[in-house]
Formats: sequence, structure tokens, C-alpha cells
Amino acid sequence: MVFSSALLENAVNEFAKLPGVGKKTALRLVLHLIKQDKDVVERFGEAITGMREKICFCKVCHNISDSEVCNICSNPLRKSSLVCVVENIRDVIAIEATQQFNGRYHVLGGIISPLDGIGPDKLYIDSLIVRVKEEEIEEIVFALNPNIQGDTTVFYISKMLTDLPVKITTIARGIAFGGELEYTDEHTLARSIANRIPVGQYVISEH
Amino acid sequence: MVFSSALLENAVNEFAKLPGVGKKTALRLVLHLIKQDKDVVERFGEAITGMREKICFCKVCHNISDSEVCNICSNPLRKSSLVCVVENIRDVIAIEATQQFNGRYHVLGGIISPLDGIGPDKLYIDSLIVRVKEEEIEEIVFALNPNIQGDTTVFYISKMLTDLPVKITTIARGIAFGGELEYTDEHTLARSIANRIPVGQYVISEH
Repeated sequence: MVFSSALLENAVNEFAKLPGVGKKTALRLVLHLIKQDKDVVERFGEAITGMREKICFCKVCHNISDSEVCNICSNPLRKSSLVCVVENIRDVIAIEATQQFNGRYHVLGGIISPLDGIGPDKLYIDSLIVRVKEEEIEEIVFALNPNIQGDTTVFYISKMLTDLPVKITTIARGIAFGGELEYTDEHTLARSIANRIPVGQYVISEH
Repeated sequence: MVFSSALLENAVNEFAKLPGVGKKTALRLVLHLIKQDKDVVERFGEAITGMREKICFCKVCHNISDSEVCNICSNPLRKSSLVCVVENIRDVIAIEATQQFNGRYHVLGGIISPLDGIGPDKLYIDSLIVRVKEEEIEEIVFALNPNIQGDTTVFYISKMLTDLPVKITTIARGIAFGGELEYTDEHTLARSIANRIPVGQYVISEH
């Protein structure tokens, strides 16, 4: 792309560095911002740089936070005895959106995946063990993606927790609500038959 | 979406205001920026706000510019007698990318479209007439999109220029290079038959 303005070119190149944003999209976004008032663009820029400058990670659960301890960990209304282990921040947001979980979190920062060179030492597993030993945690719920890496991680961490007095569970896996048996893959179907639940125990929603 | 951080929420909301960027994409982009170094994000923010702060429009051709007169208009190597009329800045970038045009531009800032409430008074048509009168322009090439609005605009402006000693042309319209007759719409095909060119006059490329 040939630009008649170095300022424009620079802004387009910066946008094009974002994942999934090509040069054409970047140009479209920059031309959109040029049409906006100066203070609107100022606010956009400051929201981004200010966020990066001030944001930190909760020292308890490693979730994104505005302060040393995030507002989920410091919330006295949430059960401190129940901890949900997730891979990343996006999963925290997804679970929070359900409004079905009232405990606290522990963000691993990834998942055990030897093929990608991610071993247990690269994840926040040690700090989870320390939390289980020091805090009064009664139950750890694993909410990891249902795949080989997720299962490996659950297996590894639960082995490390076997001698500690804590209940270990994992979120239910099975056929998604609204799904159809006919189109469900055989692994999911086979597992959901093997892990069948008595109808009386099946909870529709906690609220 | 529920966020544990007001800074994160603010940054996501600002990104989600951009055209074609939803909440999920905005979150992905923000989480990408959180992973980057602080000075990388600083540079991103400053490229955007600095661009909006300093950018202006060329007072001759209304193209985006870093100074009062853009570097295309002020380039002494470009033919000042040839002016290409385009709808917007994106079209300037598209034509510059071909490296086939060595004249200057005139950006209308839109196209006549009564249905969208855009009349000739909202476009930079008057300044084009002034340029034709005051500068030594020999030829005006219209490079507008080939549709009803584009044709209307060409017709309207060329009517206003009839008494002035200037040649008026339009970029060739016809079947795109690499296209197939079989799949070309009938309008394009009919027009390209009506406007057929003697083979001897057909120029493959100016360079």
C-alpha cells in the first residue's frame, strides 16, 4: 500500500500488527477514527495505553485485576472454600457470564501441552497447591477444555492433590444443551453414556 | 460480558466501538495487547492519537496529508495538467498502488446519491471547478465506481465543465482482466460491446 501521509501509514501499520487485522482492515479502522472527533480518538488511545500501564494480575488467582488482589478474590460474598481452576482469563469471563458460579478462581495461564513445549512448570500449579494447603479450600472444580491436554492437566494436578483433604471435581461433559444425539461425535456420546447421571441428581440450574 | 477489571472493560468497550469489531474480537485484541511490552502498547496508542491530532486534508486536492499541501500535489515530478477525480482516499491508495498514474488527484469526499441525502453541495465540486479555471489542467479523468451514483456524478460535473477548455475522460469500464465472458453480468458485457476499442489503440500498460 502506498500512502500520501506518513502519519496515516504509521497508524495503519500499528493496527495491522494486531492479530487477525490485515492492512485493508487496518486502513478502514484508521479512516473511521479520522472521521471521529479528536477527543473520541484521544479517549480510545488513553483507554488502551492506560489499561496496559496500570493493569496487573491478582496475586492470589492470577486473574487480570486493577489491584493486587482482584475483586473476585476480595469479594466476601463469594465462597472461599470453592475454587474453579481454568486455563485463562477468557474462561473466567465465560463462567462469570453464566452467573452460576459463586466461588473463586485459579487461572493456570495455560494448559499442559508437551507438543507445544508447555510443561507443568510454566503454569501456576505450585501456587494452586500452596493455596490448597494454606486457605480453607474444600473443593477444586476443574473447568478445562475437554481435550487431551485438558484431561492431562486435570490428571497431573489431581495427582499432586491426592494427599490433601480436598474434594476434586470437574465440570460435566456430555452432549451440549440443544444438541442432537444423531450429530454428536462418538467420543462425546460414548463418554456421556459411561458417565450417566441419575435423573434425581441432575440439577437444571443453581439459581 | 462480566469483567473483573474496570480497566479491561473500558479498553474492550473502546475497541468494540470500531466498525466490524464485536465484544469478543475486542477482548481478543485487548488480551493480545496485555501480553505485549508496555512501550509497544504506548507506541500503538501514540500512533493513533498523534495521527488524529496532526493529520489534515490537502487544501488543493482534499486528500489526507501531513501538511497543508499533500506530497502528491507538491511533487514536481507529477503532471500537474492531469487530474484524476476520485470518491475517497481509499481510491487514491488503490490507484497509487497500480503505479500507472502520474498526475494529481481531486478527492470529492463522496458521490452524488440523492437517496442517501448526498447532493452536489456536500462534495468538493466547487473547488474542482476553481482548480480547472485557475490551474493549467488539460485533462480530468473520472475514476468513480461504475454504478448509477458514479455515472450521475460524472454527468453532473462534466456538464459544469463543458464551457471550460479541458478534456474529460473516464477510466475504462469493461470485463475485468482474468474474468470470464460466461460469468460476466449482461450490463457489463453489453457496455463493453458498445464501447469496443480498436485493437491498435489498446494499451497494455503505460510502463
